[in-house]
Amino acid sequence: MAKKDKSSNKDRPSSGTSMTLGIDLGGTKILAGVVDEHGHILGTAKRKTRPERGVDAVIERIASTALDAVADAGLTMDLIDAVGIGAPGVADYNTGVIEFAPNLANWVNVPLGPRLQSLLETPTFVENDVNAGTFGSVTAGVAKGYRSVVGIAPGTGIGGGLVLDGVLWRGARNAAAEFGHMVVLIDGPVCGCGRRGCIEALASRTAIERDIVGELRGGRRSLAADYVDSEGRVTSGALAELLKEKDALVTEVVSRAARHLGIFTASLVNAIDPECVVFGGGLIEACGSFMMPIIRQATYHYLIRPVEPENLPILEAILGDNSVLVGAAMLANASLKAG
Amino acid sequence: MAKKDKSSNKDRPSSGTSMTLGIDLGGTKILAGVVDEHGHILGTAKRKTRPERGVDAVIERIASTALDAVADAGLTMDLIDAVGIGAPGVADYNTGVIEFAPNLANWVNVPLGPRLQSLLETPTFVENDVNAGTFGSVTAGVAKGYRSVVGIAPGTGIGGGLVLDGVLWRGARNAAAEFGHMVVLIDGPVCGCGRRGCIEALASRTAIERDIVGELRGGRRSLAADYVDSEGRVTSGALAELLKEKDALVTEVVSRAARHLGIFTASLVNAIDPECVVFGGGLIEACGSFMMPIIRQATYHYLIRPVEPENLPILEAILGDNSVLVGAAMLANASLKAG
Repeated sequence: MAKKDKSSNKDRPSSGTSMTLGIDLGGTKILAGVVDEHGHILGTAKRKTRPERGVDAVIERIASTALDAVADAGLTMDLIDAVGIGAPGVADYNTGVIEFAPNLANWVNVPLGPRLQSLLETPTFVENDVNAGTFGSVTAGVAKGYRSVVGIAPGTGIGGGLVLDGVLWRGARNAAAEFGHMVVLIDGPVCGCGRRGCIEALASRTAIERDIVGELRGGRRSLAADYVDSEGRVTSGALAELLKEKDALVTEVVSRAARHLGIFTASLVNAIDPECVVFGGGLIEACGSFMMPIIRQATYHYLIRPVEPENLPILEAILGDNSVLVGAAMLANASLKAG
Repeated sequence: MAKKDKSSNKDRPSSGTSMTLGIDLGGTKILAGVVDEHGHILGTAKRKTRPERGVDAVIERIASTALDAVADAGLTMDLIDAVGIGAPGVADYNTGVIEFAPNLANWVNVPLGPRLQSLLETPTFVENDVNAGTFGSVTAGVAKGYRSVVGIAPGTGIGGGLVLDGVLWRGARNAAAEFGHMVVLIDGPVCGCGRRGCIEALASRTAIERDIVGELRGGRRSLAADYVDSEGRVTSGALAELLKEKDALVTEVVSRAARHLGIFTASLVNAIDPECVVFGGGLIEACGSFMMPIIRQATYHYLIRPVEPENLPILEAILGDNSVLVGAAMLANASLKAG
């Protein structure tokens, strides 16, 4: 992507600190933050995404949120070296195009990077959100100091991110780390992708929801009945509540999903042998205290080369809401340097 | 590993061509070959392994085979820059120790590298055999020119190798690419590792054998009955014969294994996004013409990001018997250069 030359900038602080703007574009909200080169957040802003209003409106909302974050940091846009944006779905890092994003009212081939770059007059780098979040964990989060990290983010779907030797691994076609569509139960339940037995069809919030609603329809009694909305949806927050209430059905279904996530995690570790694994995503943010012990137990049991847990930590992301924006900012910074 | 200084060698050909010795240590035979830096074989030798005679005897047989290969090339050992050896099982590249090799009469913690280095007075590098074979395919075989390659080797078990950006990926603990123990059918058939549902328990020669013998015992009629030995074993060669005879049972069982291998391959591609996939191993060497079309069809169907087959070739290793020795030699050469 063409880069704007900012080397002549005379207002630049003499410290020489590089500052980038990170944006987390989600299906419901946009988060933006100014991030220094150590991953510290200097200012933030937030807006609803409102994808139903169309591509142009969303891109304008992103730009406004970005400018708000810069103002919140007490800065001006000309002090920002680069913009990084993490988006849900398939992002082409090289062109800045969002090829496909079902969570953004089905964006197809949207040139998000070039359009934001033109609006903000600053080099802009686009990345898949879980890739960005994993890189955020490695550079400024719970996995700081680890060089090779598998990131797994169970939520509505199951996203993935892969950092190898300190570098985000994008694969040969920017298609790496699609962990959600690795098959763990051949000919198992149907997945949103149309195939069967993907881990996403077994352990995402959507899969848990399907299993709970199925049991309720079959006549099983559970407090969950009060939490299912008219479209058969159960939020991650509701699942956390129901686990706290020790509802038998929800405990059973979520435990099974967590065990499946653990077996799946072991498979990934058997293939890649990372230094650590980081879990993020809405389901883990809400239900991590219940799910993580089960995930860890199944993972260690299914490793072909046994390892002491301290030599393969399975961590919960701590950046929480900010992991994607921090990671997107750090990636933009790294891209600028590699530039 | 300490390296012998050969820089003072006066007999060295003036061409400056680097020559390494590659060794394929298998459960039944030892292959050795002198390999130039382009991966061409200049001379070879072969012996039976006879692991039942014990560690010392096997190491002596390896050294003798190595010297025979050097003589076959019309050379002497002092012209060999390094030795690379591919061994079945868990090899620690850094120490040269074979941690565990069930196919070598259960070797445990055998310092193969240091002992060969001392016998041959030449820097020696030890590697897992499928790692070596995959590197051989990338540097001098069917995958030459590709930078990121997934290698899958179904035979008695299912081995794996992973080359990323032109470098063998060994992982954080030299434990990467244990593809055989990735779970594709949670709670499925028991695996040799003691867990359930690993791809090795579904699509190795051993799994195929188990399914065929099970059906025969259940009364199913098949030509396979004539090929099962007293211990219930069916060789890959026998399977190839039975496929040629269009035996219904064998066709059914091998087809299913091939489909499972394809679904599994797609999962690996969804995670790693390599430039190509290379299949080797005894089962594919014998039955590849039947299995590869089924493997390819299932793989392309299960990719989350569809790709034209020419943009993700799924290849059959062509080095055959020599892939491990060539790869081991090329790895030794690369290790020597990396210092």
